[in-house]
Amino acid sequence: MMKEAASNSGHGHLVIIGGGEDRSDDKEILRRFIALAGGVDRKIVVITAASKVADHMWDIYDKAFGDMGVTNRVPIHVASRADANRSDLARQVASADGIFMTGGDQRRLLAIIGGTELDAAMHHALKLRGACIAGTSAGASAMSGHMLADGSAELQPEKGSVNLGAGLGFLQRVVIDQHFSERRRLARLLTVVSQNPYLLGIGIDENTALVVERGVGIEVIGDGAVTIVDGRTMISNINDIKNRHCPEMIDVRLHLLPGGSRYALHEDEHGVELAHSDSNSSRQDVPLPLKDFLRIVTKRNPIS
Amino acid sequence: MMKEAASNSGHGHLVIIGGGEDRSDDKEILRRFIALAGGVDRKIVVITAASKVADHMWDIYDKAFGDMGVTNRVPIHVASRADANRSDLARQVASADGIFMTGGDQRRLLAIIGGTELDAAMHHALKLRGACIAGTSAGASAMSGHMLADGSAELQPEKGSVNLGAGLGFLQRVVIDQHFSERRRLARLLTVVSQNPYLLGIGIDENTALVVERGVGIEVIGDGAVTIVDGRTMISNINDIKNRHCPEMIDVRLHLLPGGSRYALHEDEHGVELAHSDSNSSRQDVPLPLKDFLRIVTKRNPIS
Repeated sequence: MMKEAASNSGHGHLVIIGGGEDRSDDKEILRRFIALAGGVDRKIVVITAASKVADHMWDIYDKAFGDMGVTNRVPIHVASRADANRSDLARQVASADGIFMTGGDQRRLLAIIGGTELDAAMHHALKLRGACIAGTSAGASAMSGHMLADGSAELQPEKGSVNLGAGLGFLQRVVIDQHFSERRRLARLLTVVSQNPYLLGIGIDENTALVVERGVGIEVIGDGAVTIVDGRTMISNINDIKNRHCPEMIDVRLHLLPGGSRYALHEDEHGVELAHSDSNSSRQDVPLPLKDFLRIVTKRNPIS
Repeated sequence: MMKEAASNSGHGHLVIIGGGEDRSDDKEILRRFIALAGGVDRKIVVITAASKVADHMWDIYDKAFGDMGVTNRVPIHVASRADANRSDLARQVASADGIFMTGGDQRRLLAIIGGTELDAAMHHALKLRGACIAGTSAGASAMSGHMLADGSAELQPEKGSVNLGAGLGFLQRVVIDQHFSERRRLARLLTVVSQNPYLLGIGIDENTALVVERGVGIEVIGDGAVTIVDGRTMISNINDIKNRHCPEMIDVRLHLLPGGSRYALHEDEHGVELAHSDSNSSRQDVPLPLKDFLRIVTKRNPIS
C-alpha cells in the first residue's frame, strides 16, 4: 500500500482528515501523507495558523514527522495577514512537497491566510508542482471553496443555524465537516445541504481521511468513515419555514464510505471513459450514484 | 385540527411515538391519539406489558388521560403469556376504541403478547373496528412485522450489531426505531437497512409521532422529526465484510419529515389515482420519492 501510494507522489493529492488522527502509534494517515508527498526525504511544512497555540501544534507534528524519519520539516507560523504575505514564508510553502494544516479554528485560519501570498503558494505547490496538501479538523474544513465556518444544529437540522465562509478552494462545490460521527454532526451537515443544495456535504470521522487524487480517484483510510450527503435532487420546504425551524428534506442521497473504500473514475476531464491503467487497477469501478461525487472532488481546478 | 382529526376516527390509525411524549403540558400527541380514537368519551385501554413497572406506567397514563377527560380508561396488565391469552382481557382490548402501548422493552412485550389472544384482539380492533393503536418507545418498535429488538451500533454502522425480532405486524416492510435523534441511532438504523434493504428504516424522535391513516396518508406531529432511510437501491459490500466492520453504503435515500409534514396518497389500493376528497384537501400531494413509503405504511394489511 505504502509503496503504491508513494509511486503516486507528485500528482497533487489532498488528504482531508477528520481530526484526531493517530500521531504516536501506527500513524497510518500521517504516513500516507508523507508517502504521497514523495517520502520521508521530501520537504514537509506545517501551517499552524488555525491554532492559537501554534508552538504546541508544531511540537506535536514535529515529533510525529520526526519519528517517521522526516528530516526536512519546517513550521510555518503566521499570526497575522502581514506574516502570511511574507515572501520568505511563501517561498517555503511553494517549494514544499507536503503541506500540512493543523487543527484549531478554520475561521481563524482563513482570516489570517485567505487570499495572501501563503494561500497562493499552497495553490502553486499543489497544482504546478503536485505537492500533497493535508489538513486535519479545521485544516480539513478550510480546504473547500465554501467552508463550514460554524454551526449549532443540534438534534435536527435547523434553518439558519450554520454559517459558511470562504475557504481555500482546493475543492469546489463541496462543504467539509470533521469529527463527524464523534460530534454527531449529521444534522448540521444536512442543514448546510438544505440551504445550499448545490454543495455536496462531506463528513469525515476522526482518525479517518478522504484522500483525493486529482483527476483520478479517491480513497478512504483510517478507522472511521466518510459520509457524503447529496441534496441536489432533494425536495425541501426550506424557503417556506421560519428560521430555527427544521426543514422537510425528501430524497437526500447518502453515501457511507468506510476506511478501505477506493474508487477511480477511469475517465478524462470531459467524462470520456479511459482504458484502465495498471496503476489504478486495484481501484473498483465507480457505482453510478457515486460518479458525480468523484468528478466533483477530483476535478482539476484552475489556479484560483 | 382536533376537530378534523376526530372526524377521521374509526379509520384504523396508528400513532407511532418516539418516546418521551409530553404527558403533562399540552399533550399534543396523546390528545391526537384520543381524537383519532373518537374522543374522550370512547374506551381507551393501556397495555403495560413492555414494562417491568406496569403499575407505574399505568399511573402515568391514568393521570394523563384522566386529565384530558377520558373516563373509560382501563389498564391491561399482562405479565405472562397465560395472562395474554385470558379471554376477558382480550375482550377488553377487542372492544377498545383506542389502544395505547407503553414503553419498556419491546422484546419483553413481544415475548408476552406475540401471537396471543391479546395480539389477535389488537388486530381485530384495528382492522375490523377501526380502533386507533398508539405505541411509544418500545411500544412503537413493536408495531412493525420486523422489529428492531436490540442493537449496539455506535458511531458507524456495524455489520451484525443489530438484531431483529418478530413484532406485532401492524405495518410490514419497515423497521421502527425511537428516541432517534436523542440517542443518535442513525448508525443502528443504517445497520438494519444495510443487512435488510427490503425494510424501510423509520426513526422517530422523542415527543414526535408518525400518524398513519390506513389507505390514506401520514402526518408527523410533535417537536422532532421522522427520519426515513430507504436502502432498496443501495449498493453495499455488506456480504464481503467481516462481522463488526462498517459496510460501505452507496445511494441510501434519506427523508426527513419534521412535525407538520402531512401527505396523502390520493390513490386506491391498486395505485389508481383518486379524485381529491374534501376531507384530505389539506394534505399536500406526495413527492415521487416519498410515494413508495406512503404506499407501504398505509397499506391495508389482511388480518394476521
